[in-house]
This record gives sequence, C-alpha cells and structure tokens, in this order.
Amino acid sequence: VSDTIAAAVDEGRLWRRLDALACHGARADGGVDRPALSDAEAAAKRQLMDWGAELGLVAYTDALANLFLRWDVGADLPAVLVGSHVDSQPTGGRYDGTFGVLAGLEAIAALRTAGVRPQRPIEMVAWTNEEGSRFAPGMMGSAGYAGARGLAEILAVRDAQSISVAEAIAAQAARLPPLPRRALGRQVHCYIEPHIEQGPVLEAAGVALGVVTGMQGKRTFRVRLTGEAAHAGTAPRASRRDALLAAARAVLALEAGTADPDDIVRFTVGRLTVTPNAPSVVAAAAEFSIDLRHPDADMLHTLGNRVAGICADVAPPCTAEVEELSCAPPQVFDAGLRTALHRAAREVGVAALDIASAAGHDARYLEPICPTAMLFIPCRGGITHNPAEAIESAHAVAATRVLAVLLAAQTATALAAKTG
Amino acid sequence: VSDTIAAAVDEGRLWRRLDALACHGARADGGVDRPALSDAEAAAKRQLMDWGAELGLVAYTDALANLFLRWDVGADLPAVLVGSHVDSQPTGGRYDGTFGVLAGLEAIAALRTAGVRPQRPIEMVAWTNEEGSRFAPGMMGSAGYAGARGLAEILAVRDAQSISVAEAIAAQAARLPPLPRRALGRQVHCYIEPHIEQGPVLEAAGVALGVVTGMQGKRTFRVRLTGEAAHAGTAPRASRRDALLAAARAVLALEAGTADPDDIVRFTVGRLTVTPNAPSVVAAAAEFSIDLRHPDADMLHTLGNRVAGICADVAPPCTAEVEELSCAPPQVFDAGLRTALHRAAREVGVAALDIASAAGHDARYLEPICPTAMLFIPCRGGITHNPAEAIESAHAVAATRVLAVLLAAQTATALAAKTG
Repeated sequence: VSDTIAAAVDEGRLWRRLDALACHGARADGGVDRPALSDAEAAAKRQLMDWGAELGLVAYTDALANLFLRWDVGADLPAVLVGSHVDSQPTGGRYDGTFGVLAGLEAIAALRTAGVRPQRPIEMVAWTNEEGSRFAPGMMGSAGYAGARGLAEILAVRDAQSISVAEAIAAQAARLPPLPRRALGRQVHCYIEPHIEQGPVLEAAGVALGVVTGMQGKRTFRVRLTGEAAHAGTAPRASRRDALLAAARAVLALEAGTADPDDIVRFTVGRLTVTPNAPSVVAAAAEFSIDLRHPDADMLHTLGNRVAGICADVAPPCTAEVEELSCAPPQVFDAGLRTALHRAAREVGVAALDIASAAGHDARYLEPICPTAMLFIPCRGGITHNPAEAIESAHAVAATRVLAVLLAAQTATALAAKTG
Repeated sequence: VSDTIAAAVDEGRLWRRLDALACHGARADGGVDRPALSDAEAAAKRQLMDWGAELGLVAYTDALANLFLRWDVGADLPAVLVGSHVDSQPTGGRYDGTFGVLAGLEAIAALRTAGVRPQRPIEMVAWTNEEGSRFAPGMMGSAGYAGARGLAEILAVRDAQSISVAEAIAAQAARLPPLPRRALGRQVHCYIEPHIEQGPVLEAAGVALGVVTGMQGKRTFRVRLTGEAAHAGTAPRASRRDALLAAARAVLALEAGTADPDDIVRFTVGRLTVTPNAPSVVAAAAEFSIDLRHPDADMLHTLGNRVAGICADVAPPCTAEVEELSCAPPQVFDAGLRTALHRAAREVGVAALDIASAAGHDARYLEPICPTAMLFIPCRGGITHNPAEAIESAHAVAATRVLAVLLAAQTATALAAKTG
C-alpha cells in the first residue's frame, strides 16, 4: 500500500503549486515578500482554501488566524496536524514554510487518490507569523496555540507602523471568506512539519531527506541605547551622547564577546533602528535586536547572560537597556515518530539522514503538547531567507511521498499515538 | 529715528507668534516635527501669509515653493530679503528657522509703525527644506534659487516614502491659496538671516547678539555596504557577509579617523538604515550618512578624502560604495554688511560679538549672489535640533530691533548696496 500512496503523490502538481503560491507577494528578483497577516498572505491563504475545497477539506481558523484545512473522517478524535507557515521574510525565498504546507496538502491528496481511509482527522495547518519580522517575536501562531504565550499579550504586539496583531487579524479576516473559529490549544494527535533544511548538510551528503532529531536553543533580546539629540554642525564631539556610536560599539563588542572558533554559536544583529535618523542630527536613540542560538543549553545560558554586561560596558556616555524577548531551550523530538519516519523512508526507498535543526520552527511550540516530528529537504547552497532560495523538485516529491506514507501509518488506527 | 524704529518692535507680539507657529507640527514634548513641504509646514506658511496680509504684504512663491511676503514700495528695484525657514527636524525645536522668519516679519511691521518709507522693496522669505531630513540634502530652496543646484535635479529627489519634491510641492500648493509664481534667481539687493546660534558661545559671553563672520565648510556623503542575506539560525558566521557588522566597523573607524583633540572637526553619522532589517536575517545591506564640517578648507578637504579609504579597509567581506552628496567650502560674509550690523547694534544699544557659524544656513547659498549677513541670538545650553531648544524673549526682541534699524539703513536709498 505504501507504493500506491507514493505513486499517488503528483510531482508536477506540487511544483506548480509552489510556483503559484510564490506569486502572492512576489518580488522582482524571484523572491517573496509576504509579511504575516498582510494582503499578500491573505491571498496565499485563499489559494490554499481553494485547493483544499477541491479535496473536500473544511477550512477553519482560530483567534490567532492560524489556518486549518481539515479532512473530516467522521471520527471525533484529535487530528494529525501537518504543515508549516506561509508568511515570509521581507527578502524571503519561495520555499521556506510553503514547502511544508504544500507537502501536507499534496500528501492528503495522495491518500485520497490511493483510497486510504484514515481513522482520525488529518489537518493541513498554516501557522500565523512564523518569521517574526513584521511582529516580533515569531512563531506567534504556534506559540499562542500551544499556550506558551498568552493570547492578549500576542494580540497587543505592534508592527513598525503601530498596527497591532489584533488589528491585522481583523484586516486579514475581512479579505477572506468567513471561517468558523475553533479554540486555541485543541488536542493534537501528533504534529509533522516538513521544511527546507536552511543549511548545507543534506546537500553535501547527497541525501533527499533529513529526519530532524531536535532543535538548537534560541534567546532573543532587544537592546536600546539612549543618548541625546544634538546639532551635527555645532555640538562639540566631547559633549555628545551619540546613541548610534554607542550602538556600533555594542554590536561589535557583542560580536567579539560571542566569538567561537568552532563556529557553532549563532549570533546575529539583524535589525537596527536609529532615532531621529536624520543626517544632521546626532542620534538620540538606537535600538537593535539580538538573535542568539546554540544547541547546548548551558552554553546558550552563559552566552545570553553576557549581553547586558557587555552593553553596559560600552554604552557610556549613553545608557543601555537590555530586554530578553524570548528564551527557548534546545529540544529533542519524539523518538517514536523519528523511528516511524525512518521506516516510511525505507518503505518508499528514500535515503534519509538524522539531522539537527539549526533554525527555529513552529514545531518548537508543538513539541511540548504532542508527539512532534520534522522532515527536512536540501536547499541549494544552504541559502535561505534570501530570494535565491532554491530546492530540487525530486527532493520535494521524495519527502512528500515519505510524508504521505507516515500520515497513513499515523492514522491507521484510532488508538492513541505510540511514541518512544 | 533708530529709537523710534526700535520702540516699534513689539516684544509680546513676536513671542506670541513664535508660540503660535510652534503649534503647527507640535510634538507632545514641546518640540516641533514639521517636515519640509508637509501639511504642518503648509499650515505654518498659511499663518505667515495671514500675518503678512494684515501688513499689506503681497505673498508669492516660485518653482521650489519658497514663500515671499513682499512690502511693495512701488520702486522696481531688487529687494532686501530677510528670513530663514519654517521646516524642522523630526525631533526639532521651536526657534530654529522660525525665529529668523518672524524677526523679519516683526521688523517690517516696526518700520511701518515707525512711518519709515523704504526706497526699495523688503521681502520676508521662508526657504523650502533647509533641514534636509525629509529630502536630502537640505537648503534646497535657497540652493535652487541661487542656481547652485539645478531645478530638475531638486524636483526629482524622493523622500523615504518615495514621494518626489515635485509631488510634495504640488500637494502643499493644493493646501494653500493660489499664489503668483516668480522666477528663481531674481536679483537680490542683500540677504539678511537672523537665527539662533545653535551653540554655546553667545550664552557663555552674556551677549544678546552675534554678528556672523562666516560659515564653516561642510561635506556630506552616503556610504552603502553590501553583503548577503542569510538565516540567523543556520548560516555559519565564517561564511557570512553581514552588512550591519560592516557598517558598525565603518562608523567606528571613521569616528576614529576623524578624531581631533581640539574638538573642531564635526563628524556625524546621524542616519543608518539596514536591509531587510529583520531580527533573524543577516543584513544584506546597510546605508549611512556622513556629515563632516570644518572651518578650514584644507582640513575639510583632507578629512573628507579619507572617507572612501577607511570604508574600503573595513568593509570586507562586504563591499563599500561611497558617494559625496555635497561639498560646501568655508565662507566669509560681506564686510560692509557686518560693519552696518555693528553700527545698528550700537545705535540701539545692544552688545554684539563677532561669531563664526558652525551650522549651515540658507545664507550659504545667498552669499555668492548678493551681500549677505547673519545675526545670531543665544540659545539655552547651545541645545538645538532638539525639543528642548529654548531662547530668551529679551534676546529675540533686542536682535529684532537691530534688524529693523539695519533694514531701514539698507533701504534708505535707491542706490546699489555699498559693501566692503
């Protein structure tokens, strides 16, 4: 039966849909700019709903605008969730997130074509604001669903234009057909997230599929330097409290303070904003983000705890405020599902490799509430969060075949999930 | 007759008008945010036109939206221009620019009250976009009027929202009554610009009036660092080309490379923007402004010519492009007008001090086309381009009395200006 299921996965359809979804928020350079809860993301969701309707899937949402397309098999049992997200970075690629969502949809289509009768519901999911570039921090939809963050706190977050999440959700809902809302935190049988690797390991190994063992930990911070506005032509430099200079010192001191000859520490300042940001005004304030990741919990703790001291050391004559926005410890994924993934890969004849995830994913927030697995496919040169992001159709279809066989196995009985 | 003129300057009216003008674009912190060619600036101009109409002054404009209020005395002679600007920095104060415009208007009112009959026209002027924070570089209206920059080039400049100067001028014109347009570059008898000092010298000397001897030179640059976007969680640091790090290195290297124990060099990076500016994306590009000033032409030349080399040294693995946006050499103001200013100050009994201007002003662009003078008044603590900017009413009225007496002297005959 695995062969029948695998044969029902339609490589051409999957590839065409990846292309079609990339038209929503398309950039002239071939990449995608599809902010969370934007009109472009609404158009992408509407497209998913249309494809889901062709399969008879029922669309619904929740208080965080997560989108679910449910294959309702008549059994009132917790569903198998499969998916990822359809928002992108401002200079994003076409496959980050969308591959997981469309692989889920294609796997459901294949099971139906193959005549599989699941004993429990399967739902494709697109989580809200995984990327966190419009509303920080990211993985908002999955974190809120899983109860890791409170709904009211999430809804109050504002973007750079001062639009709140609540307002953006309402604006996006107005662009979509009315959808029934279900509660956050409904019980999940298991969660499976396919994704591009976003690193060079699978490509270098020449393997189409990665079975993800777990996720490195991540801490994020916001640093604010406060100085004083002054006239660029008149204020003596000795009298200035220049927040832009203080920010430059802090960024370089933090880069040096997290240096790592083994290149395992990931330290990034990706966002920096200056106030008033005018050429002839000494900066009154500057604010920057820190994204710090490490697979080892102790090391992540140690490095993160250095941030405030380093900023305080180099800030004078400005002052520094450091706020930790999120702290996610390293994670290990469900052993039973990993074993099941390897079994499915063997049945379909796809070579698979165990691999750790360097990036954060919505799976991070599902892992504490249900058995969770991730499948990776290679991406060219490890390049991601970049319009040049690219994958091979052969890898995409191979992983989707494995996914479809896994979904059949996970829904073959009405029993609770057996995990390691 | 000087006493009569001086007595006709109304301190209360001048102060009330400074307060009234500060309501257009008022910030909650007491400062002003009145961008060039904004609705707030249109409202300020409309207010000036209303006050001018009470005096019988005729309003007109030109292709750059400079505003002139003309006391038309019936003589077809080049006018004496007096004024400054009414746009502000985003976190600006209430007196930068507006003091010069309102002192001009008050001096005209005093001459009329005192029964003075000028032999040539006097015009109050408010130049467009002196500050340069919405459209860079600044002093756009005066530079275009004087022919230092071409009209087409200026009209094509765009702000951060991609609105062109031409579009912004049309939008502002639509909010004002129709005004007759006169040509740019019409002959000017002389130009007199009152302004706050924007430095600590007059306050420290306890003097109400500065007779400006000249202006320090200024060069501005735009530096662009180009790297490559990458994923903050996956991209090894050794492989990154992080444009934000390169910008931080360049800013600090330039700060060090222009260091000056005498604190005469003014070096400022006031604007820095990052692309895509997302917390979990390694920066693909960063762009920053440089504002460099010095009273000595040779030193200004030497320091400015270091910029490209310093950026190229520290940019790798990113690349740096450096573009010079403007280069204004140091200037010395008209000796005849400076003597006339001292004479007027003596007649009115106001202590005056020779002072160099550290800031740039519209007078820079008028100086090559007509005899030009500037009057400074103290500002508290030398603080400017800041909502905390403050002046004393006694200084404002004293300088306006001197200005009115000077205007009377400069318009007493229909002869060409006598200058040193």
